Amino acid sequence: MKATIITIGDELLIGQVVDTNSAWLAAELTKLGFSMENHVSISDTGEKISGALDRFLPENDLLVFTGGLGPTNDDITKKVLADYFCSELIFSEQILGDVETRIRSFGSTMNELNREQAMVPKDAKILRNNHGTAPGMWFEKNGKVIISLPGVPSEMKGIFNDIIKDDLGNFFSLPQIIYKTIMVSGIAEAHLAEKLSDWEAALPEGVSLAYLPSPEAIRLRLGAKGGAKADPSTCIDQQINSLQQIIPEYIYGYDNESLESVIGRMITERGTYLACAESCTGGSIAQKITAIPGCSAWFRGGVTAYSNEIKAKVLGVSPAALETYGAVSEQTITEMVRGAQRVFQTDYAVATSGIAGPTGGSPDKPVGTVWIAAAGPDFLVTKKYNFGKNRASNIRRSTSAAFSLLRKAMLEN
Amino acid sequence: MKATIITIGDELLIGQVVDTNSAWLAAELTKLGFSMENHVSISDTGEKISGALDRFLPENDLLVFTGGLGPTNDDITKKVLADYFCSELIFSEQILGDVETRIRSFGSTMNELNREQAMVPKDAKILRNNHGTAPGMWFEKNGKVIISLPGVPSEMKGIFNDIIKDDLGNFFSLPQIIYKTIMVSGIAEAHLAEKLSDWEAALPEGVSLAYLPSPEAIRLRLGAKGGAKADPSTCIDQQINSLQQIIPEYIYGYDNESLESVIGRMITERGTYLACAESCTGGSIAQKITAIPGCSAWFRGGVTAYSNEIKAKVLGVSPAALETYGAVSEQTITEMVRGAQRVFQTDYAVATSGIAGPTGGSPDKPVGTVWIAAAGPDFLVTKKYNFGKNRASNIRRSTSAAFSLLRKAMLEN
Repeated sequence: MKATIITIGDELLIGQVVDTNSAWLAAELTKLGFSMENHVSISDTGEKISGALDRFLPENDLLVFTGGLGPTNDDITKKVLADYFCSELIFSEQILGDVETRIRSFGSTMNELNREQAMVPKDAKILRNNHGTAPGMWFEKNGKVIISLPGVPSEMKGIFNDIIKDDLGNFFSLPQIIYKTIMVSGIAEAHLAEKLSDWEAALPEGVSLAYLPSPEAIRLRLGAKGGAKADPSTCIDQQINSLQQIIPEYIYGYDNESLESVIGRMITERGTYLACAESCTGGSIAQKITAIPGCSAWFRGGVTAYSNEIKAKVLGVSPAALETYGAVSEQTITEMVRGAQRVFQTDYAVATSGIAGPTGGSPDKPVGTVWIAAAGPDFLVTKKYNFGKNRASNIRRSTSAAFSLLRKAMLEN
Repeated sequence: MKATIITIGDELLIGQVVDTNSAWLAAELTKLGFSMENHVSISDTGEKISGALDRFLPENDLLVFTGGLGPTNDDITKKVLADYFCSELIFSEQILGDVETRIRSFGSTMNELNREQAMVPKDAKILRNNHGTAPGMWFEKNGKVIISLPGVPSEMKGIFNDIIKDDLGNFFSLPQIIYKTIMVSGIAEAHLAEKLSDWEAALPEGVSLAYLPSPEAIRLRLGAKGGAKADPSTCIDQQINSLQQIIPEYIYGYDNESLESVIGRMITERGTYLACAESCTGGSIAQKITAIPGCSAWFRGGVTAYSNEIKAKVLGVSPAALETYGAVSEQTITEMVRGAQRVFQTDYAVATSGIAGPTGGSPDKPVGTVWIAAAGPDFLVTKKYNFGKNRASNIRRSTSAAFSLLRKAMLEN
């Protein structure tokens, strides 16, 4: 079954806003078993929208539109689709009730524009929106489906998950595909690919592998199609077992779990706390941890020590270490991580100190040189890294390396 | 002049990667004066690429392709374009030199695949790549231009800025459009629109206004077209002068400058330092500041105090404040910001304490309640905010509000 996603909006077309809806929808539709044909972004005019229908409907089984459903002028998608499918707009008491409830929950009052949102195409299935005011629409024509959703990502995702996912599965006869994502960290992609080449070459037919690298982790996505011969989940489970034998130390989780969540679980299981002392990561470690709901149960806090005085005064790093070896050294990072444990009274801590750039490098410590330490009640590990020249990337890579080093040390101790 | 951007790659099409190239290119092409027709993402097959040429070339003056130029299998774009424009691939000594230099700088050695990158279409202008190995290509046909660029964003942007921007300006006769972005913070979009409605209604013909909201700031983008009557920069300057009279306190900068950069400049001008004490923002304030190169000249550091013990022990918040008023209170935030000034020995400091959610709220302090303080040598301001229910959004909004509060207080003191 072929699908095309069409996002509507001048703000996308002229590059004011990055279109994230297409990638999200494409990933969902691919998981359901659709074959993606195109993503297209167009302007919010009647001509462009009906032009896209003319162009893409013949060669697709499913078109998903997002955008152009707001209560203002850009309410054009609904009218254009209703015209295209020769369906008049009728008043829906139910949708009016939905819109009223929503507007009231914002502490606002209905106006004429909101009332018009209750006018819906007679021949469409109306997709109620529990996440905003504009309902979605589902048209059918010659065995094809045309869906229109709001452009606001939370509303689009909400309606998709609430209604569309199941309805598409019921309407189309889609191949059964199962996906499982293995989260890998602490190894470069090229080295990972080398370690996995024999295993990858031996993957049975119908099992696909995708490498999805990100600054934080490499995600390995295994997919298996259902068929007469084998149950796809059994098939995936077997491959994960093999992977576990080849790269046990690098697999830290599954299905988009973050490394910091895994660390949170490990610290919680040990009934204890974590703290951090950051120099080059400048608060990124704390920020990633505190993005996790409930982290106060296992995270006490951290210090961003952006000067030698603060490393000495707040974390108790000795003048000897700073003067003799410098802020970016094994001696200093060791005292920083011990300082974090002491100040925050925690069993576990991580610390970073490095030259993020663009300036501050020297011949023996070029930009990208980073020392990281992880400490527990009965271990202390330190490691030197040589990242690149880009400040933002050095900060991201140091943050991720700190979590990786801590996890590895906790597993071994 | 009409332009369409075509991004090539299965990783985009199935949603593994969000396409950020299209928005970046669209913003650049719009600034140059092109009218954007479509963004399209397609699979990396010859059929799809030549299909896109058939479909979009007739109705556009410019097509920009990105992707499919790597040294591996997906080297298909070059062959397809060369075939389409009946241009044989010939060997380029110069490009081979470029590729060799680049590969050597990675500390790597050339292989057969790299050598093939020096095969280029005879009838295309070759766009040398100073940012990676794959060169770009510029084809011309019947007064139209077809450009092919690597998919790696840094390489695509590099070649665009190095070569294409000027060459497009020379090739096409484009309308002169000048843009200026005014950065606004500390006011909600709806209130801003209300304050600006008369001014907006009176904008002269040829001057356009776009609201570009983000979690950190509202960007107001003014555009003016060159014409016989007026110089567009004068026209924009006049409108900015008017804006400065209407919302002086909310304009913090221009052209995508961040609030934290502006604060950095203000602190630097005063020859002094900043520190922060974070509870609900959990390191986000420090992280935003330390993303700025050279910030160690004006930022000493911060504490993420994620428990009452740490607020007391590290920042010296009194048990009285914590017990009587709680961690989220004017009393505690005042002692936190004073603590940050004292611990980090700085003139200026900001502090945050709030309930980011999803849990931890109570009837009198629901999720989204946040206290923020900003302090200087001769001022201390505190403010209570009521944000929403979403943890990530509460953290972002608190971070941005903290910068806004500090800037406002510094301006007034």
